Amino acid sequence: MKEIFFNADHSPIGAFSSFTLGYPGAKGGLGMELGKPADQNVFIGLQTADGKYYEALPFFDYSEDESKRFDIEKLEQGDKPSVLVWFDKNCVTRQFNLATDTWNAGDLEFKIYSPIRSVPDPEKSIDMEMKKAIVPAVFAEVTVDNTGNKNWRRVFIGYKASIPNSGMRKIYINDGQICGVGEGRNTAIVSKGENVRVANGFSMEDILGNQLVENWTMTLGNCGALILDIPPGQKVTFPVAICFYRDGIVTTGIDAAYYYTKFFRNLEDVAEFTMNNFNDLVDACKEDEKLIEGYNLPDAKKFMLCQAARSYYASTEFLCYNGKPLWVVNEGEYRMMNTLDLTVDMLFYELRMNPWTVRNVLDMFSERYSYEDTLRFPNDNKEFPGGISFTHDMGVINNFSRPGYSSYEMYGKTGCFSHMTHEELVNWCCCAFGYYNATNDLKWMDKNIDLLKSCFQSMVNRDAPDAGERDGIMSLDSSRTMGGAEITTYDSLDASLGQARNNVYMAGKCWALYVLFDSLFNERGMMDFAELAKAQARKCVDTIIKNSDKKDYIPAIIGEGIEAAIIPAVEGLIFPYIAGLKDVVSENGPYGDYIKLLKKHIKAVMKPGICIFEDGGWKISSTSNNSWPSKIYLCKFIISDILDIDADSFSKDADEVHKSWLLRGENAYWCFSDQFILGEAIGSKYYPRGVTNILWLYKK
Amino acid sequence: MKEIFFNADHSPIGAFSSFTLGYPGAKGGLGMELGKPADQNVFIGLQTADGKYYEALPFFDYSEDESKRFDIEKLEQGDKPSVLVWFDKNCVTRQFNLATDTWNAGDLEFKIYSPIRSVPDPEKSIDMEMKKAIVPAVFAEVTVDNTGNKNWRRVFIGYKASIPNSGMRKIYINDGQICGVGEGRNTAIVSKGENVRVANGFSMEDILGNQLVENWTMTLGNCGALILDIPPGQKVTFPVAICFYRDGIVTTGIDAAYYYTKFFRNLEDVAEFTMNNFNDLVDACKEDEKLIEGYNLPDAKKFMLCQAARSYYASTEFLCYNGKPLWVVNEGEYRMMNTLDLTVDMLFYELRMNPWTVRNVLDMFSERYSYEDTLRFPNDNKEFPGGISFTHDMGVINNFSRPGYSSYEMYGKTGCFSHMTHEELVNWCCCAFGYYNATNDLKWMDKNIDLLKSCFQSMVNRDAPDAGERDGIMSLDSSRTMGGAEITTYDSLDASLGQARNNVYMAGKCWALYVLFDSLFNERGMMDFAELAKAQARKCVDTIIKNSDKKDYIPAIIGEGIEAAIIPAVEGLIFPYIAGLKDVVSENGPYGDYIKLLKKHIKAVMKPGICIFEDGGWKISSTSNNSWPSKIYLCKFIISDILDIDADSFSKDADEVHKSWLLRGENAYWCFSDQFILGEAIGSKYYPRGVTNILWLYKK
Repeated sequence: MKEIFFNADHSPIGAFSSFTLGYPGAKGGLGMELGKPADQNVFIGLQTADGKYYEALPFFDYSEDESKRFDIEKLEQGDKPSVLVWFDKNCVTRQFNLATDTWNAGDLEFKIYSPIRSVPDPEKSIDMEMKKAIVPAVFAEVTVDNTGNKNWRRVFIGYKASIPNSGMRKIYINDGQICGVGEGRNTAIVSKGENVRVANGFSMEDILGNQLVENWTMTLGNCGALILDIPPGQKVTFPVAICFYRDGIVTTGIDAAYYYTKFFRNLEDVAEFTMNNFNDLVDACKEDEKLIEGYNLPDAKKFMLCQAARSYYASTEFLCYNGKPLWVVNEGEYRMMNTLDLTVDMLFYELRMNPWTVRNVLDMFSERYSYEDTLRFPNDNKEFPGGISFTHDMGVINNFSRPGYSSYEMYGKTGCFSHMTHEELVNWCCCAFGYYNATNDLKWMDKNIDLLKSCFQSMVNRDAPDAGERDGIMSLDSSRTMGGAEITTYDSLDASLGQARNNVYMAGKCWALYVLFDSLFNERGMMDFAELAKAQARKCVDTIIKNSDKKDYIPAIIGEGIEAAIIPAVEGLIFPYIAGLKDVVSENGPYGDYIKLLKKHIKAVMKPGICIFEDGGWKISSTSNNSWPSKIYLCKFIISDILDIDADSFSKDADEVHKSWLLRGENAYWCFSDQFILGEAIGSKYYPRGVTNILWLYKK
Repeated sequence: MKEIFFNADHSPIGAFSSFTLGYPGAKGGLGMELGKPADQNVFIGLQTADGKYYEALPFFDYSEDESKRFDIEKLEQGDKPSVLVWFDKNCVTRQFNLATDTWNAGDLEFKIYSPIRSVPDPEKSIDMEMKKAIVPAVFAEVTVDNTGNKNWRRVFIGYKASIPNSGMRKIYINDGQICGVGEGRNTAIVSKGENVRVANGFSMEDILGNQLVENWTMTLGNCGALILDIPPGQKVTFPVAICFYRDGIVTTGIDAAYYYTKFFRNLEDVAEFTMNNFNDLVDACKEDEKLIEGYNLPDAKKFMLCQAARSYYASTEFLCYNGKPLWVVNEGEYRMMNTLDLTVDMLFYELRMNPWTVRNVLDMFSERYSYEDTLRFPNDNKEFPGGISFTHDMGVINNFSRPGYSSYEMYGKTGCFSHMTHEELVNWCCCAFGYYNATNDLKWMDKNIDLLKSCFQSMVNRDAPDAGERDGIMSLDSSRTMGGAEITTYDSLDASLGQARNNVYMAGKCWALYVLFDSLFNERGMMDFAELAKAQARKCVDTIIKNSDKKDYIPAIIGEGIEAAIIPAVEGLIFPYIAGLKDVVSENGPYGDYIKLLKKHIKAVMKPGICIFEDGGWKISSTSNNSWPSKIYLCKFIISDILDIDADSFSKDADEVHKSWLLRGENAYWCFSDQFILGEAIGSKYYPRGVTNILWLYKK
């Protein structure tokens, strides 16, 4: 298949919605709160110059005539040939960018604009600014070039309803100045202009083939479309808004509504605002496009950055809870809310775009989704003091879990679905430091310094109960595992990355935090704590170094005989780096020995058969074929920009390979996915985490 | 398959919801606003006496383990044998009644109570009475007889979420005194009692097979269940409520909410009210059961009456619009709202149960869904004065159509989807007379007498523009057909019943109305109109008689050479009959000649090869194999109770045959269906119209 036919999300910010388009068939459409594309028929097409047929972009299935359900006599008649066909796919072109996505076919152009933009801080923004940023709609322009033709030609854009308890309806606003078709009270495609008409039918063929246009007024059919007749010799562009809306309380566990409901009463309100501000909204998207300008990104990187950002916004859900903003990013196909081990990776994106969302999520975790535990050594029932940690997530599919508990974490497990107590403790702290260092929000730090102290103490306790036994590395599992073992975010990998205890990926993040705690405690004049933090950082590094003695790389799990090699051993480096602690991550700084070891490690493992796949893609663990693009982007940035190693030297075309994974076969249906086994997307589909690649826009 | 495994609706009144159960597999469940069962997995089961397995009623599919989606390593392991199996279907028994439905298997009993009851008139009822009648829940009792056993046994009831943007959650009310599992904010199964626990899992097997019950607390899985452990030697019954809720405005076109939202804020409110009033609510259903007592109905009739009433309530939607009640019955699988040609058949049920709903629907039709047309003779563009009529419906799937237009009626058609102008004019009048005669609501009649006069005039105009040309039979089609032809409610049949013009089914209803107008105008002292009405009635009868000259039956279409024989030639008789005009429908009355002809007609056509199928079922038209149970019930009542013919003599086992149609193969999935071709349900599935069989409870 031509490489342009991949799905991409076109999403309002914070509406947990997507107008998905690009994969052939009924594989895109207007989806709300889904873990996948809406799988609707979307019709965007134009009458042929000779007037005989209609050609449309290939985003629908040839469907059975639905009216047969009503009129059984029809069953005995033969089927007529369809008047509606796909454009020849070889004649379709696409310009896919960050905030625009433009399709051309014959005399038709369809251009979609998506906001890729900062969300204004609700405490500081004015209403109009917020409305324009979060209006739950995306925008499109349909252009027909009929200049070389002597016939009128009919152009259409429409879709087929698919929500089980909703049908297709018509929308008329201000006496029809704005009109459209919509599915119940939830989605709509609208336009404006006196010549735009709306039609309903059992199918798009039914609408186009109908003898009497009066029959467009019926509303029994599940298909709706905007229709415009283009005069001979003219080139016409008309505006389209793809709108989403969900009213009232949408969550359980806590009662929250979409933040946009503060500004828009219903779908009609959204449509009217969008049409009345169409040029401004489109111009803003054109401005958004500039985000990636001037970086000379190669095509593969540009593609992955665009897909990652789009999938991120498709997962965003900006809520209002108790009158206050509540920022949620849903976990792609799994739809867990604010999964903290994703938040820590999306941190770089959010700090760049809207740091207040990081604060918002941090606060919700500390207020509702933190807990205290006790600790155990493996195979031992004795309990030791633990400390505070944070849940894996805040719930799933709009159902907020009870305070102190995630939707995900289970008991008595050693693999997937076990607790991520230490992982999430570390992640909350990484986000907290990231937020503080990016904003210098002293007010927030004043409020949270005690909590951070508790977090630090909780980390230290997880090293060893007895100070003399501490080696800077996690040795105890939370009692919440009930005799199981904690896991990391790499839950579906083998122990090399999946096991938390003694893991060098975890150790690297712990080291980073000890370093950052050292700095923070110093800044605050908490010298005893600073000293302890520095000691822990040193111990951690010493332990890692000691365990890599006689090896040219760092084994994944320390002291348990698991000799796998993992790229994420370097992950921790990013946090001191973005905090500006350049000496800490330098070969010549206080942890130069550790930095040198990491360089040696990377150079040793970044080889085919170890951490490079046969196809040249990066393999995050030598012992698993399951590799994650978001983490590859992160680690590759660290390797090249922090460790100063030519990361492209290990596999010249790695970016191209990673791009090809996203596009291969059915993978292209899922927009951005984040778990690939030998290039096949096998999990974490439709996923927001890829925005780690925003780091490509962090200047060295 | 054993004859007990058919789906039946268990529905609150007016909530457009159904807890559907009975067809094996994931074929029932908690459906809201659907045109079919929810197709969910429902788990109602009990641990075996030896504790090794769990047996459940066969209402779920053996599903793949959903956790594999998260943990790909699992894919490489073999599947374990399931701990959850279906009860041997041969050991399951069912007692299916009007308001109760009881399943027994082994030591388990599951009994569902549904309200089959009057809806209080909102203008006259007190809140508590209304709340109890329309609380959006149905009720059940689970009984486990563990008296003969020495082990604890676990019993469970649960289901798997299936709404695309909703997951399974837990519900705790009043510190867990009431608890349950629910799908988003829309459906729930709840119970009460300190020993009842709630569980979540990826599957029911997952919940039952789990080693640590602590893992029931997770919320990532799509399956939820109530769990109770039954002590050895005890017999325990616990109450269950199956709850439905949809908040806010649910319609488009006009903005209406469910009437129950006046009393219940959310699903939790519904659950709490139901549990706190459980005994009253169950007792009321037991009282409902008495509706059909004392009639000595044979089993087949009883079965059909129960199914029809249940499917009717599943389609009811009691709304609040502009602060006032708005009664809607949805049209089964098609979900058109208040289809007027269904209303006229459901009239007999609603007049018996809650005549105010008939008034409510009549008023909405006259206020928003009436229109004026002009008329044309076939193949002639000249327009003649028409008059008022009413639309086919008020919209579809919660989308109210614009004023004066239905969702269904199209232009330039001669078959299905054409206009039903005369059909619906007649139906509105039939309902109006039915309501007035049942209630003697003079206030309503005073308000509507002018409208009825207009209706009468509109009918007369459709006979012929020139008074001298009138023959009592429809001769002109509405200009709304734009050169097409009007159809009747029998839209999917051939011309014998499908064409409105000159149809003797239509003629019979017109005659009935002329007779009723005659009576009404007399009562009101409008003697000129009365005389005209009587003249029209006479003309109608004379025309029918003349056209049956030299035949032993009445041909379906008068004067167009269509010689089919149709049973619904008798339909009109029901309306003067229920109005108490017994002489009018008597052989010895003023229309005795007509009545005698109808008797002759019936005796002539009710024969195998004409209007009796080979299987003994009734065939409403000799030229179509498509036959409709609702109309059969109606006509059979007319034939036996009005025409005084032994209707069973034509086909001794006809009731059994019609019952067997509902139960045959996949037909049993659809609860009640109303279009059968040779016993196969091919349309009008999941349909409310079968309640014409309430006539079996009208004493002779």
